[in-house]
Amino acid sequence: MSETLTERRARLMGPNVPTFYQTPVHLVRGDGVWLWDDQGRRYLDCYNNVAHVGHCHPRVVEAICQQASTLNTHTRYHHTLVLDYIDRLTATLGHDLSQAIMVCTGSEANDLALRMAQAVTGKTGIIATDNTYHGNTSAVSQLSTRRPPIGGRAPNVRLVPAPDATKPLGGSLEAQAQAFADGVERAIQDLEQSGFGFSGLMLCPVFANEGLLTPVKGFLDPTVEVVRRAGGLILCDEVQPGFGRVGSHFWGHDALGFAPDVVTIGKPMANGHPVGACLARPDVMAAFRNAFGYFNTFGGNPVSAAACLAVLDVIEDEQLQANGAETSAYLLGLLQGLQHPRIVNARAAGMFFGLEFGGEGAADFTADLVEKMVARGFILNRIGREANVLKVRPPMVFGKEHATLLVDALSDALAE
Amino acid sequence: MSETLTERRARLMGPNVPTFYQTPVHLVRGDGVWLWDDQGRRYLDCYNNVAHVGHCHPRVVEAICQQASTLNTHTRYHHTLVLDYIDRLTATLGHDLSQAIMVCTGSEANDLALRMAQAVTGKTGIIATDNTYHGNTSAVSQLSTRRPPIGGRAPNVRLVPAPDATKPLGGSLEAQAQAFADGVERAIQDLEQSGFGFSGLMLCPVFANEGLLTPVKGFLDPTVEVVRRAGGLILCDEVQPGFGRVGSHFWGHDALGFAPDVVTIGKPMANGHPVGACLARPDVMAAFRNAFGYFNTFGGNPVSAAACLAVLDVIEDEQLQANGAETSAYLLGLLQGLQHPRIVNARAAGMFFGLEFGGEGAADFTADLVEKMVARGFILNRIGREANVLKVRPPMVFGKEHATLLVDALSDALAE
Repeated sequence: MSETLTERRARLMGPNVPTFYQTPVHLVRGDGVWLWDDQGRRYLDCYNNVAHVGHCHPRVVEAICQQASTLNTHTRYHHTLVLDYIDRLTATLGHDLSQAIMVCTGSEANDLALRMAQAVTGKTGIIATDNTYHGNTSAVSQLSTRRPPIGGRAPNVRLVPAPDATKPLGGSLEAQAQAFADGVERAIQDLEQSGFGFSGLMLCPVFANEGLLTPVKGFLDPTVEVVRRAGGLILCDEVQPGFGRVGSHFWGHDALGFAPDVVTIGKPMANGHPVGACLARPDVMAAFRNAFGYFNTFGGNPVSAAACLAVLDVIEDEQLQANGAETSAYLLGLLQGLQHPRIVNARAAGMFFGLEFGGEGAADFTADLVEKMVARGFILNRIGREANVLKVRPPMVFGKEHATLLVDALSDALAE
Repeated sequence: MSETLTERRARLMGPNVPTFYQTPVHLVRGDGVWLWDDQGRRYLDCYNNVAHVGHCHPRVVEAICQQASTLNTHTRYHHTLVLDYIDRLTATLGHDLSQAIMVCTGSEANDLALRMAQAVTGKTGIIATDNTYHGNTSAVSQLSTRRPPIGGRAPNVRLVPAPDATKPLGGSLEAQAQAFADGVERAIQDLEQSGFGFSGLMLCPVFANEGLLTPVKGFLDPTVEVVRRAGGLILCDEVQPGFGRVGSHFWGHDALGFAPDVVTIGKPMANGHPVGACLARPDVMAAFRNAFGYFNTFGGNPVSAAACLAVLDVIEDEQLQANGAETSAYLLGLLQGLQHPRIVNARAAGMFFGLEFGGEGAADFTADLVEKMVARGFILNRIGREANVLKVRPPMVFGKEHATLLVDALSDALAE
């Protein structure tokens, strides 16, 4: 066969299904923070948050194998694993977020969250930032600036200016917090005047897709106050910051110190097994459950629940949140020590780092750096409105030795 | 702990999360067509289509374990398993349905199918039947009569009268086929006049949720002609009939002999592992892929692909489609031999059977029969507009010996 993998993908998946990197990496094996390609070449994974507790963690694999060989069915029958999981997961949450709907993806979770806000408020207007991504369903993609919906944006959606990650570090933190709240307030007024009313604000507490903001306690307080005053819900997308990634706390919203009405999760929940969940207070859940007869065939099945429980076990037993905090401080220090005229700043939200570059052609410069790094065996990518921020978001088992390897290679690539 | 499982579910999942049966079954183990509860009691599974090749099939379990311990990542890197799967799956399809988007649920697949119709036609109007269910996302639940959307149905949706399963068997097949096509045509005219235009018709080729129609070649020809003439797409939901369930063919639409533009699949694809897919012709896929930058983190991951491939292997090696055809004829004969004044008819679409009851209180009678059967160790349920049809939809490894056990117990329960 002379057909390349790229050609085969195009034949079977259609056009516009991009891969990472100019020469796509063909991966065949993973273990912890390491990945191997089909040529036996090893890569340090500095990017994949789905493999939260490390690629192919034996305890998660074992949990999946064990349960898949015992029973896998839906939640119309009684089973204890899904209940054990919701019990344990909600124990990590404050603010009376004690109930959950288990689904299969973060997109499904966010799709549900939008309807919870509608069910509680009886209104349909929804607000998100103007540089975000919350998932891929028809409804949720309405909130995306990167993947605008087919046929134009729905009239009940307002996208407000996202905070700028470089400003808080410059010192104007309060002004920026207030500016974001003001933008939300204007959008609420606009939704009320246009007849949709305001149902909720969906946001990622560390603004991961917007370019990553270092979480600062109180930063969202003015915004939360504006939302509460208008009777709307705060739908907190914890797909990226949750499960200890922020290091200081198990949840991003706890690092910022605000109380969401709904929390959505996905990617890292089961280390790659397709799971998501929408967590809510009992009053919010009751409003939704009484308005809509939701059922998800795969959601909360025993295999998914077993995988989810194993991930919680590993986070706890291997103290991955503490490791995240420790590695975060260490790696941030190394990144801040890098010398290059284009570096604007290095920032972190726990085990999630942004190294921002400035100057003309910063996006191309960052793209080129990503290519140089993958050639050196380091899996990385970019974020930010201008795609000028190197994105470092490794599995939570990433340690100081890996941080050193990464920064040595970065230093080398930047010196080129 | 004095908290019952029902109480614990309500505490952790909220209200209105129903289980099957007055006394919910607490399942702990599955093997082939058999399930066991926490008391060691055995049940014959005559209902679960997710465990398509039998509960905990060792080849599917082994494929999952093997790949989960090797690598599980997303499709932004090259991997051959997802391509191997799409290659093999599309080889089972005619009508140039040669490309796929892999997702995690049938709901996600149908949500995509709606957008494909929009992308191709540039219009938004969509038609489904008036007694159906195609999934649980915000967009797809607009097509559901069982779970109507929060805040009312969107104005671009038309629900047309579903065919009645008892009439074709009475002989007025052509009239019924034409009546359905006429309903679709009226809905198309209405959508065009109201400004939305007509993008597509979504349907299950055996009308499984509507009450189950025995597939008859040509039955949907008048409808297909109406849809084609109006420039719309036929979105064929094969979640229930696909993968050999209809016995005579691998796909429901092949049993009816029509060419869909998009085929969606879910539940049985990976025997319970959360997978779905949206299959389309290259021209349809290109229109969608060029209009929208879709990416699904878990969709098409190597573990899901491995599980999907194993299911195809088992269907082929154990000749499950042929077994379905054989068991279907045998069980249908037994069901048709049952004597009870309330029985209207017994019908089948391969390994999917309906036993319809009539007379006053037929729904309660059927509900009571389901309860009597679970007490005897048989997992069953109901379908149909009036919920008066006993639904028999076992794993594809269900054989004649199981059919005999089922009908003996049914005969016994009906005699009570």
